[in-house]
Amino acid sequence: MASTIFACSEPSPSQPSTDEGAPGQTYPDSVYDFLAIPKTDKLSAASKRALERNYAQGPEWFIEFTKSDLKGDFAYEEGVTRRDPSDLIKVGDTYYVYYTKTVGKSYGFGTGDPEKKVFPWDKSEVWYATSQDGWTWKEEGLAVGRGEAGAYDDRSVFTPQVMTHEDKYILVYQTVKAPYVNRVKNQVGMAISDSPEGPFKKLSAPILSPTDDGEWDGEEDSRFNVKSQGSFDSHKVHDPTLLHYKGKFYLYYKGERMGEHKTFGGREIKWGVAISDKLTGPYVKSEYNPITNSGHELCVWKYDGGVAALIITDGPERNTLQWSPDGINFEIKSHVKSGPEAAGLDQSLDFEASPVAALQWGLTHEYVTGDWQVIRRFDARKSFNP
Amino acid sequence: MASTIFACSEPSPSQPSTDEGAPGQTYPDSVYDFLAIPKTDKLSAASKRALERNYAQGPEWFIEFTKSDLKGDFAYEEGVTRRDPSDLIKVGDTYYVYYTKTVGKSYGFGTGDPEKKVFPWDKSEVWYATSQDGWTWKEEGLAVGRGEAGAYDDRSVFTPQVMTHEDKYILVYQTVKAPYVNRVKNQVGMAISDSPEGPFKKLSAPILSPTDDGEWDGEEDSRFNVKSQGSFDSHKVHDPTLLHYKGKFYLYYKGERMGEHKTFGGREIKWGVAISDKLTGPYVKSEYNPITNSGHELCVWKYDGGVAALIITDGPERNTLQWSPDGINFEIKSHVKSGPEAAGLDQSLDFEASPVAALQWGLTHEYVTGDWQVIRRFDARKSFNP
Repeated sequence: MASTIFACSEPSPSQPSTDEGAPGQTYPDSVYDFLAIPKTDKLSAASKRALERNYAQGPEWFIEFTKSDLKGDFAYEEGVTRRDPSDLIKVGDTYYVYYTKTVGKSYGFGTGDPEKKVFPWDKSEVWYATSQDGWTWKEEGLAVGRGEAGAYDDRSVFTPQVMTHEDKYILVYQTVKAPYVNRVKNQVGMAISDSPEGPFKKLSAPILSPTDDGEWDGEEDSRFNVKSQGSFDSHKVHDPTLLHYKGKFYLYYKGERMGEHKTFGGREIKWGVAISDKLTGPYVKSEYNPITNSGHELCVWKYDGGVAALIITDGPERNTLQWSPDGINFEIKSHVKSGPEAAGLDQSLDFEASPVAALQWGLTHEYVTGDWQVIRRFDARKSFNP
Repeated sequence: MASTIFACSEPSPSQPSTDEGAPGQTYPDSVYDFLAIPKTDKLSAASKRALERNYAQGPEWFIEFTKSDLKGDFAYEEGVTRRDPSDLIKVGDTYYVYYTKTVGKSYGFGTGDPEKKVFPWDKSEVWYATSQDGWTWKEEGLAVGRGEAGAYDDRSVFTPQVMTHEDKYILVYQTVKAPYVNRVKNQVGMAISDSPEGPFKKLSAPILSPTDDGEWDGEEDSRFNVKSQGSFDSHKVHDPTLLHYKGKFYLYYKGERMGEHKTFGGREIKWGVAISDKLTGPYVKSEYNPITNSGHELCVWKYDGGVAALIITDGPERNTLQWSPDGINFEIKSHVKSGPEAAGLDQSLDFEASPVAALQWGLTHEYVTGDWQVIRRFDARKSFNP
């Protein structure tokens, strides 16, 4: 039975020691009471987990979402895919967003025709659109196109993210070099402009590449046949997001592994971070990678001196909000029912106003069909705002 | 970036010791490799969790779902709520399902008119429908109505579950006695028939009641004002599901607590179990309750000598499949993205065929509006079947 009535926020009890799961661990009476666990030696496995994993945290990070169709050029258009919205930046009274745009059906691998589009994000470009109210969007045009034949980005550029820094507008995005085969290793590019409308000037080389340490097995074009899988990002680096944090540039990204397998959390997708003193690199991958064990499209933002992350799609910690004090060591702060995929946040919001202030609204994408995807809006459900 | 290509199942490495999180814990090299965690002392907090919590489990329990509209009387009908489908039983070539049916708008508490319907599950009855193919359903009529004025079930009967046992058809369901106020304490009833079409004969008294140990604060009709909250089920017992297990009757149920608060997993909803040697009781609550720390509508089934559970809506372990060797101590077996709420399973399937064989298809409910809910169908996504 569902109920739509909720209690107001209330303070959570003091947390147990972080030495979780140690033998003989005891917890304050307030924790047992908060968790509705009788203080006896007859604890179910679930109650033991609730104590050990600190399920007595309060609702400060808890949030739920609604999703809505958008108007103007972001209304659904059959035959066109718009997806992977970047964060939103507000310049004057105008919102800007950058996104993946492609047209035409996808045919998958193995057609024998190397020109045929394999995925909805193949043969794509980064476009941008503007809005005054966040609801009606006008598609303005191309922001970053594909490179010339033979360039590292000659097949596809997609999943953009935007950052403003010292009067510059910086885009980071994923790139693929032709031919688009199962074993292609995509990279991350960067382009910089003096205006949100461009022109965006590409750096001459990618700023991030897969870790070069797995080994394919045989010659067949299969991404599942490997002698060794290598690092979590041995195959692909995806969905880059750049933060200027602690005086350095933190390039967060999703890794895909050669010979990907499935686990009890579905796809084995994890995130990493690469750090540079300079905006244009070189970006050095953290020795602590992977920094998540779950996730998919990146969604990170600065909060309270640390970095917050919305982890939705894959892995054992899917559907969580997490926070790290240092941009690297992320702890679970809440478990949401579901959330916006590929979320783009409104960078003009006051992210410090509350743990979930960054998530009050933004853009997301959804699959209408396997071929056509559409950008929609997400909003926080008002009744869940702390 | 999403991909629709998945690896075949492959064996997971041997599990680490269950002494999880103990200082100095070491794990086999295969676990590090499976988790893509470098074997160094520079482990992120996420990588430590992945090792300690055994995120290296394989995909045997992993599943994803699609949902579809139904035909006939289960097509959406404005002004009518059908929700909380029971499991399906097959008698001859006919499927039977039992569910909550109500008509008319809901007005919430505080209207001053005790006759006004407060929730979509208020003033409801248990109805049943039949189908030959699982897609087109015919509403047959009432299975269990409300009791006479003054009876424990005179206000509402809802959230039915069905069990067949020794040629009997047994329904268990939630009951509310008038008046329906915030602090009303609902109970669980049982009715038995010789035929799936009834007549169902009610037991004279409820078989389960809330644990009587919290204390309200003041006289205001608020379910949030308490001096003490009491047990996890001090306010309500919901969504009963009965299993004949190990020669006894296991009555699983959802508990709601007086003074419910929110946690970092949303609503603090947990499940309990009450056990009886006899079908009609008395049912004695397990000393190990609560047996989950998450969940909402019940979905449990027997598998491999134990009991499996689909936990979807609320709490820190929402969106998981769990399994217990003994019907009481549940461990997480997979993390799903989302799943059917209030799932009704097809009891005629061979549940032992695989860990997720019970979930190949079934019924679920969805909110069309706050007033009107509809029963839909869920199916396993074929590409995820092991």
